[in-house]
Amino acid sequence: MNQQPTLTIVKIGGGIIEDPKALLSFLTDFSAIKGAKILVHGGGRDASKMETRLGIETKMHEGRRITSKESLEVISMVYAGKTNKTIVALLQSLGTNAIGLSGADGDCIRSHKRIGTEIDYGFVGDIDHVEASNIAYLTEHFCPVFCAITHDGTGQLLNTNADTIAAAIAVAMSKTHEVHLNYCFEKEGVLLDINDPSSLVKQLNYSYYQELLTKGIIAAGMIPKLMNCFDAIDKGVAQVIIGPTTLFQDKSTTYTQITKG
Amino acid sequence: MNQQPTLTIVKIGGGIIEDPKALLSFLTDFSAIKGAKILVHGGGRDASKMETRLGIETKMHEGRRITSKESLEVISMVYAGKTNKTIVALLQSLGTNAIGLSGADGDCIRSHKRIGTEIDYGFVGDIDHVEASNIAYLTEHFCPVFCAITHDGTGQLLNTNADTIAAAIAVAMSKTHEVHLNYCFEKEGVLLDINDPSSLVKQLNYSYYQELLTKGIIAAGMIPKLMNCFDAIDKGVAQVIIGPTTLFQDKSTTYTQITKG
Repeated sequence: MNQQPTLTIVKIGGGIIEDPKALLSFLTDFSAIKGAKILVHGGGRDASKMETRLGIETKMHEGRRITSKESLEVISMVYAGKTNKTIVALLQSLGTNAIGLSGADGDCIRSHKRIGTEIDYGFVGDIDHVEASNIAYLTEHFCPVFCAITHDGTGQLLNTNADTIAAAIAVAMSKTHEVHLNYCFEKEGVLLDINDPSSLVKQLNYSYYQELLTKGIIAAGMIPKLMNCFDAIDKGVAQVIIGPTTLFQDKSTTYTQITKG
Repeated sequence: MNQQPTLTIVKIGGGIIEDPKALLSFLTDFSAIKGAKILVHGGGRDASKMETRLGIETKMHEGRRITSKESLEVISMVYAGKTNKTIVALLQSLGTNAIGLSGADGDCIRSHKRIGTEIDYGFVGDIDHVEASNIAYLTEHFCPVFCAITHDGTGQLLNTNADTIAAAIAVAMSKTHEVHLNYCFEKEGVLLDINDPSSLVKQLNYSYYQELLTKGIIAAGMIPKLMNCFDAIDKGVAQVIIGPTTLFQDKSTTYTQITKG
């Protein structure tokens, strides 16, 4: 019988980061999670706001940021500096020994600059390798808090999707841990009607997902998130959940569980 | 016989951070240092430049920054985001498994907001405690790179002098390690004539320092740096050196060694 230690990975999005009260409430719940845990955070609109203040044009393509050299500098400052350290200091005050990281720190996440796409996304990185042994070493003593930045090993930082980072860490760590991966956002989970919380899908497997996709029920922004979920569950992650940021509050049963098949 | 492992701590100032070529050259030398090592970096003028771009007034008192809430946010972005991650990514490319940290990360350095001074320095922290066990755990596997930010344990980040951080880490780690503390800056070391490199003081103890101070030979900016040096050597740090950023190049013998007595 293979008794692997449990590792809880939680990804939070930009919305909660911009709401200090909701963030503190979430971090309080997160701190109460027992055992090894990792937090992954996106950046939200703070980076775009900072670009505006600095007179840098924010360029997007189909909801994705085109990361110029100037934009990468802002992202490094906002994600790895402001947001990451704010979260780490708050977690410390809540008794969680957080350690804030980019993928460059401890060589945890290597990526390569995205090439060969129609659009040049600039300094955007697609993940090649998660160094699970280094992350495991850190989780034994600390609670890693990852921002959405990776590196290519030649000194270049790269902007990388936080959902994808969470899934890649979960898959890599699932070789040695029973990983519970949780995507937390502003909705209750996957909804059949985005305006009706009671339309929550409690369980979602790949064939039901394809059915919803065909019917146009799954919104555009959810597709990459769900692809990360199915990728994770297929590659050995024990549990994958999409739910609200209140997911870790007592007796919360409102979420979508991703299932195999 | 007490055979403690060696730990090399190097502090670099703002000047080198603003010079990409000199920084890469220094980091190449730093990477070649054998055994456990820690880098501590200041922020330089980058934070002030960013304040100017954001329309925030940079307030100084006797060469020290008065850190408003807005200023602290800029410092977190520039020191912990831009500068720290740039250094970490470069060190990774040079084969050093760097991990970038503020004092909040891993609860490594706790401080309290400076109070009771004539001037209100704002969000400036004076160090209370270095958690040496956490730093030791990290140095066994990684090369910690500290920026000049600490925390107070209640969720507040604080701007803290990088020279003082380096000395405090050195003192705390000297309980278990033979610590070599190196302050690297733009000069050859302590000079009797700031414009004449040949006036280098090769060895400096506290009584000679007081003599130079009385004669007005030690410049104002050097006084806190030297006080950190004497504090470190008095409290068990094995070796304290002030020298140029080329200190770790082959056969460099140009530096000031701080001695007891």
